Amino acid sequence: MKNTSFKGIIAYPITPFDKEEKVDIRLYKTLLERLIVSGSHAVAPLGSTGVMPYLTDEEKEAITEATLQQVNGRVPVLVGVSNLTTDKTIYHAKFAEKAGADAVMIIPMSYWKLTDDEIVGHYDAVAKQISVPIMAYNNPATGGVDMSPALLKRLLEIPNVTMIKESSGDVQRMHYLKRELGDDVAFFNGSNPLALAAFSAGATGWCTAAPNLIPELNIALYNAIQKNDLQEAQKVFYKQLNLLKFIVNKGLPRAIKAGLEIQGIEGGFLRSPLKPLKESEIHDFKLILEELE
Amino acid sequence: MKNTSFKGIIAYPITPFDKEEKVDIRLYKTLLERLIVSGSHAVAPLGSTGVMPYLTDEEKEAITEATLQQVNGRVPVLVGVSNLTTDKTIYHAKFAEKAGADAVMIIPMSYWKLTDDEIVGHYDAVAKQISVPIMAYNNPATGGVDMSPALLKRLLEIPNVTMIKESSGDVQRMHYLKRELGDDVAFFNGSNPLALAAFSAGATGWCTAAPNLIPELNIALYNAIQKNDLQEAQKVFYKQLNLLKFIVNKGLPRAIKAGLEIQGIEGGFLRSPLKPLKESEIHDFKLILEELE
Amino acid sequence: MKNTSFKGIIAYPITPFDKEEKVDIRLYKTLLERLIVSGSHAVAPLGSTGVMPYLTDEEKEAITEATLQQVNGRVPVLVGVSNLTTDKTIYHAKFAEKAGADAVMIIPMSYWKLTDDEIVGHYDAVAKQISVPIMAYNNPATGGVDMSPALLKRLLEIPNVTMIKESSGDVQRMHYLKRELGDDVAFFNGSNPLALAAFSAGATGWCTAAPNLIPELNIALYNAIQKNDLQEAQKVFYKQLNLLKFIVNKGLPRAIKAGLEIQGIEGGFLRSPLKPLKESEIHDFKLILEELE
Amino acid sequence: MKNTSFKGIIAYPITPFDKEEKVDIRLYKTLLERLIVSGSHAVAPLGSTGVMPYLTDEEKEAITEATLQQVNGRVPVLVGVSNLTTDKTIYHAKFAEKAGADAVMIIPMSYWKLTDDEIVGHYDAVAKQISVPIMAYNNPATGGVDMSPALLKRLLEIPNVTMIKESSGDVQRMHYLKRELGDDVAFFNGSNPLALAAFSAGATGWCTAAPNLIPELNIALYNAIQKNDLQEAQKVFYKQLNLLKFIVNKGLPRAIKAGLEIQGIEGGFLRSPLKPLKESEIHDFKLILEELE
Repeated sequence: MKNTSFKGIIAYPITPFDKEEKVDIRLYKTLLERLIVSGSHAVAPLGSTGVMPYLTDEEKEAITEATLQQVNGRVPVLVGVSNLTTDKTIYHAKFAEKAGADAVMIIPMSYWKLTDDEIVGHYDAVAKQISVPIMAYNNPATGGVDMSPALLKRLLEIPNVTMIKESSGDVQRMHYLKRELGDDVAFFNGSNPLALAAFSAGATGWCTAAPNLIPELNIALYNAIQKNDLQEAQKVFYKQLNLLKFIVNKGLPRAIKAGLEIQGIEGGFLRSPLKPLKESEIHDFKLILEELE
Repeated sequence: MKNTSFKGIIAYPITPFDKEEKVDIRLYKTLLERLIVSGSHAVAPLGSTGVMPYLTDEEKEAITEATLQQVNGRVPVLVGVSNLTTDKTIYHAKFAEKAGADAVMIIPMSYWKLTDDEIVGHYDAVAKQISVPIMAYNNPATGGVDMSPALLKRLLEIPNVTMIKESSGDVQRMHYLKRELGDDVAFFNGSNPLALAAFSAGATGWCTAAPNLIPELNIALYNAIQKNDLQEAQKVFYKQLNLLKFIVNKGLPRAIKAGLEIQGIEGGFLRSPLKPLKESEIHDFKLILEELE
Repeated sequence: MKNTSFKGIIAYPITPFDKEEKVDIRLYKTLLERLIVSGSHAVAPLGSTGVMPYLTDEEKEAITEATLQQVNGRVPVLVGVSNLTTDKTIYHAKFAEKAGADAVMIIPMSYWKLTDDEIVGHYDAVAKQISVPIMAYNNPATGGVDMSPALLKRLLEIPNVTMIKESSGDVQRMHYLKRELGDDVAFFNGSNPLALAAFSAGATGWCTAAPNLIPELNIALYNAIQKNDLQEAQKVFYKQLNLLKFIVNKGLPRAIKAGLEIQGIEGGFLRSPLKPLKESEIHDFKLILEELE
Repeated sequence: MKNTSFKGIIAYPITPFDKEEKVDIRLYKTLLERLIVSGSHAVAPLGSTGVMPYLTDEEKEAITEATLQQVNGRVPVLVGVSNLTTDKTIYHAKFAEKAGADAVMIIPMSYWKLTDDEIVGHYDAVAKQISVPIMAYNNPATGGVDMSPALLKRLLEIPNVTMIKESSGDVQRMHYLKRELGDDVAFFNGSNPLALAAFSAGATGWCTAAPNLIPELNIALYNAIQKNDLQEAQKVFYKQLNLLKFIVNKGLPRAIKAGLEIQGIEGGFLRSPLKPLKESEIHDFKLILEELE
């Protein structure tokens, strides 16, 4: 068994900006603290939710350091270190490890469609330079490359690639991972509307930005699954489904910011070209949040 | 609540042919009898598995009558009556009702892509001519038209359209149906590899050809769900998953025939252009079946 | 060189129905006569435009015989004989040959996704029973099966498969056919909005329902290509493009009927589930036709 | 008429690296000089071929300056300045303008799927800061966002957005652009295997990396079109088609490097994760190049 300390609800913070579109570290820490004390089982800065690709190297480093300081060992920390070039990915992975990250997450960002050999070479080169575990992350919608289950299996032969995050939205891939890899590998679901299906299929955890808004419901779903109570899981899942679909459809950074503000919490600004939700979208979101009360 | 007697495992028989590619009613009855006594909760002749579109009108009528005779009230019977034209669909629906069918299943077969209004008009025209319930069946892969959840919702306004069968393979559509339609409508899963995900999402039943080969495992999955035992359901599902994927990938009529013959049961012949599985495919199938023993 | 008499504009008649949705042979002959004298180089009854799959065997035979009578040798006739089963396809192909068809068109209609071997077996079985040339027709959107260029190449090894009709809408497949098959094989374009691109790529002809409405423009495009006058071809093509897109988007049988009626010509009725265009669609169509005057 | 000096063959240089994967400016200038004197009508550094997204800001600036120096007014220069954030895009656009670029090319790179309003806002913000023309570039395969023809039309309302480059590979979009925008806008084809179809549809130019290997054939195609000689254009196009397909399928930076080396020209190294073509691929490429001699 490849062991890791990650399981359950892995919460993704947003990266808030100030009015001049500079990273707002003070507000970031405030928002992160909410996640740490929410009951989530881990936090994951510099994910898609944290608009990692829109940040400069210095900003990524500042977020990494702020996270480890603020968490201070209370929950495991998974840091996103993906980059288009192998060299830069190694750089950020080493930085995260030195700062105290418990694991790093890597999506093979693609401009030119990468071959399977190139992707394996990319992970292998990074893995050789660090000793913390790596979560290989598949998300064709953001990363632009779709790693087949067979390729994910190849990646898992690299010693410190110990976790898979599947965000392709295809339940059958989770079936494949579970069947092929058995209990040796932890697979995580990154597709919010598939949370119930993924846990039913045996997912170890759920990587999600939803705990920024509804941590109790996210954790209640996990707890029902842990208690083998499918009926309760179903009930809790359908309760939060509308919100999960809304935040995915609108884009997580835009939607989480809007949701925080509806809840009376400062959400900061977005970095261009990303723009806030429109009034009508915020109105719809209010109705969804009100239903949950 | 729109009530129907259908739930659980709805078993789909194949239509076997003789050497001259004529429908073999004697063998059909033998194979059907196996399904009736297998513990399946209903049977459904003239589905895709039963190669309905490859049959003449007379052959369809003969299969319908043979089924009702053989079943003789032991389980509910759902008869496929789909046709490209509305007129022919009405003809077969009336024939099935008169023969004693408990319900009919209709997929909007499409050569020309039908508009939503045309599809509603089609179902409505048929519904007006019969009084048994109708299962509206969505299967873009065979029928060629993909009915949106919103269209399915429109169809359910027709009084005797009381059941939905979703075979698009998209769990999120099942979520939509469950959430939008609540407990008023029974939705059935027609995608074999999604059996666990669909039951987790709240499906009333599973329409499947698998009971021709492994009825105990199919029923065990349903029973685990009924007992709210997700862990058992997961275990039973993963046991049968390889077989479910195999029969779907190879095409149900070809695969069920091959599987029956591996199990020592006469499976009859296929009608051209369909051809039997190749030796290497039969070899693979044997390994999958052996694993289950 | 595999020789055939087909080239240029191959015109597809609709199959009109009377008020009771019975085939209206009298009106069919009237509409067909318009195509024969329009300057089109051939006619093709029982295509998708002619809603062939919605007709009974007897209706198909009546249309075939009516066509050959009416044409009476003035232009070559290509008869659609596709059917889900091999046996029925042979039946209709033999009927068409006996009735005097110059060639038959076959699309591998698919309910169950056919394997390449099944498709080759299907064409081969038909080809052995007739001696007129066969046009193999690829149209994933209506037939449900997408024949790869490599499979089309295999089909062309069957002696009387001498023509390919490509309606997948992918110019690059036409490039492949032209490059791989050179001048030995005639390939025809069945995608109206690709008419210019297909002729530029070297297509021998254009299979189209547009001559029911604008034969002069269709023929003018072909003539410009024959004269190696790309600028004229471009001009003529852009003139008719809006109409070509409209009739494809709305479905050819619905759109041709509507267009005929706008032009003051009787178009008959459609067979359910197909319904006429809506008022707003007819209004848009009028504007498109007016622009052409 | 929105006038620009760009038309014909716009040649894209690769960005070569040294053994340590540092940008090799000396080799870049050598390779660029070949393009300048090849007869191509313009050059375009920092495109996808030039692996722009894999470069640091400093490297992009060095390439921009090296290009303008080397070209020294002999042909128009189009510089790629795309970036995920609006701020960085403005920065690079201003740099390019100051360095002497005749125009800049911008693709809306997407990590989070951008809304139409965000894309318009992005272009508008950049356009306000520069006075050279902008080519809006649509390439879903690399950029991850697919701009609809309607959105492209909106972008063209921004005064200095004067050119469109379409690389979606869909001829019908070119038809739309030509029809909707008439002669006011120059549209360029970025899909190599569609070169003939695009020119037939009225494209002003062809953005391509092929002149690194076969400039005479690329220019011959354009000249045939200019002379309204479709038959010659067809002949010249089919001659080069295999090469065009090969370089696209293998990825332009990998393929151009390999092709240069087959021709005895130094191609430099790639930056990881990109790897060179395999021996078997190079072998196939040699055969394709030999056929052209």
